Amino acid sequence: MSQKKTKQTHPGEWSRREFITTTSKAAGAALLFSSPLISFAKTNTKDITVGDIMDAFISEVPGAPFSNTVDTLKAGNRDIKVTGIVTTMFATLEVIKKAMAAGANFIIAHEPAFYNHTDETGWLENDEVYQYKKNLLQQHNIAVWRNHDYIHSHRPDGVFSEVATKLGWTNYFSPGSNVAAVPSISLKELIQHVKKQLGIETLRYIGNLSQSCKRILLMPGAAGGRRQIQNMSKEKPDVLICGEIAEWETAEYVRDAQTKGQQLSLIVLGHIVSEEPGSAYMADWLRKKKPNLPVTHIPAGHSLSFL
Amino acid sequence: MSQKKTKQTHPGEWSRREFITTTSKAAGAALLFSSPLISFAKTNTKDITVGDIMDAFISEVPGAPFSNTVDTLKAGNRDIKVTGIVTTMFATLEVIKKAMAAGANFIIAHEPAFYNHTDETGWLENDEVYQYKKNLLQQHNIAVWRNHDYIHSHRPDGVFSEVATKLGWTNYFSPGSNVAAVPSISLKELIQHVKKQLGIETLRYIGNLSQSCKRILLMPGAAGGRRQIQNMSKEKPDVLICGEIAEWETAEYVRDAQTKGQQLSLIVLGHIVSEEPGSAYMADWLRKKKPNLPVTHIPAGHSLSFL
Repeated sequence: MSQKKTKQTHPGEWSRREFITTTSKAAGAALLFSSPLISFAKTNTKDITVGDIMDAFISEVPGAPFSNTVDTLKAGNRDIKVTGIVTTMFATLEVIKKAMAAGANFIIAHEPAFYNHTDETGWLENDEVYQYKKNLLQQHNIAVWRNHDYIHSHRPDGVFSEVATKLGWTNYFSPGSNVAAVPSISLKELIQHVKKQLGIETLRYIGNLSQSCKRILLMPGAAGGRRQIQNMSKEKPDVLICGEIAEWETAEYVRDAQTKGQQLSLIVLGHIVSEEPGSAYMADWLRKKKPNLPVTHIPAGHSLSFL
Repeated sequence: MSQKKTKQTHPGEWSRREFITTTSKAAGAALLFSSPLISFAKTNTKDITVGDIMDAFISEVPGAPFSNTVDTLKAGNRDIKVTGIVTTMFATLEVIKKAMAAGANFIIAHEPAFYNHTDETGWLENDEVYQYKKNLLQQHNIAVWRNHDYIHSHRPDGVFSEVATKLGWTNYFSPGSNVAAVPSISLKELIQHVKKQLGIETLRYIGNLSQSCKRILLMPGAAGGRRQIQNMSKEKPDVLICGEIAEWETAEYVRDAQTKGQQLSLIVLGHIVSEEPGSAYMADWLRKKKPNLPVTHIPAGHSLSFL
């Protein structure tokens, strides 16, 4: 998830334009850590708390801290002393168990822990899966922090910049645009490229596989139908590449555009694979800022298979 | 879409329990047209208006008409004299053009015309696809009515009952339940069965293909994560079969349930294929009630392909 949720929780702060201006001028993520930070690298590793790490990242985000954000602690508290950190897209039960096995007690996830955007849990109080997960985290005193709005508002946007890098398109984005101007490539070749670069077995698409693509609108996550459609309407791309859609919104717009005669295709990567590079980015950020603290990126894996 | 939208627009009226009580006692959809109706079959075909047909269907729905519903006219008006009717999941541009070619000027669709649930169009005013579609409908004086809340609130629910019939499961639902108690079948065989019965080329799933399935929770459309999860939590099915999900909600719940040790799988059919039988049901309803009026069911087709 990205734009839609950010809009809901922190309107106006998150701007794709701003971070692209930054990323397009830099060769890669490794060069971009130049903003001021709270240097917790100098602190004794044993004294580093969950709150220290949250504060250090948030201090780099323009306009932060946000008063209204989904980036709250889903389990644990700020005072827990960190033994190790796991970054991931989802703090799934499997990821939690892997973190425990690795001796890590702090999970930084990009998405909700409890199956809804704001992590409301009142409706889940009697649910066995929720209870099991909540109790497991409590019993082992594990902290889970969602870093969604902040990493998207970071400059660069840690998700977008890392996805662009993985796709090899860093140099194809003009400042102020999320449209990559790439050498002409067929839709089929484009699909094969993104599958290979992002480790995707199967994806969904709409379009003529022989269509030529030069303008690629890249929107990782699930920005929501309105944002996706407004971006297509404005940018007139040959293809939108996104993480997730509501089928009755974005897919139907693309179909109607095609019937009207427009050249417009759609590639739906899957939500996790479209943003997982952002969790790797977060791990790299932590390793750079706190080299003595064990940090592991554990991919949340593909949730859905195809048959 | 089904439950989520209905809840938003007409809380409390739509009840899966009630219609199942009806369907489970009947052999098939053809036997179920016993409720009182406004008989427009007696009227001269040339005089039948869009409003007449809307009123006739709505008169069969318990608690209708609804004061707050998405089932409004998206184009045209009540007074248009009907030359022919097309039923479909989506009034896509392609379906509209096929309807025109067939001489039909009234499209009854299950889903929105303009890419969002409530068919708000202010944000689309400058969009070329929207303008083209709106103008095409205006120029040819074609009426588009969304029949979503009403057909789901109809007894039987015209979508659910027809999907259940197509799957051959009518006799497997107990009164008051949307859980089919079927003879034991592996997840793989179950997937193959639903693909064959509903004409699906590829679908998405989560689960062990050799898992045995006996209790199948059937929720066509996109009921929303909370509804889907609450139903799984309550009904403890072996598998949920639904039309569409938000990946970060329902899919992650199912994954966590599996890690916890529960036997719970997920089959995501795709939104259109999961509810298209409801549009065929609507066509049958019209043919029965107005045999002299040309009625055609035009499937909205698969929007997404897989690669």
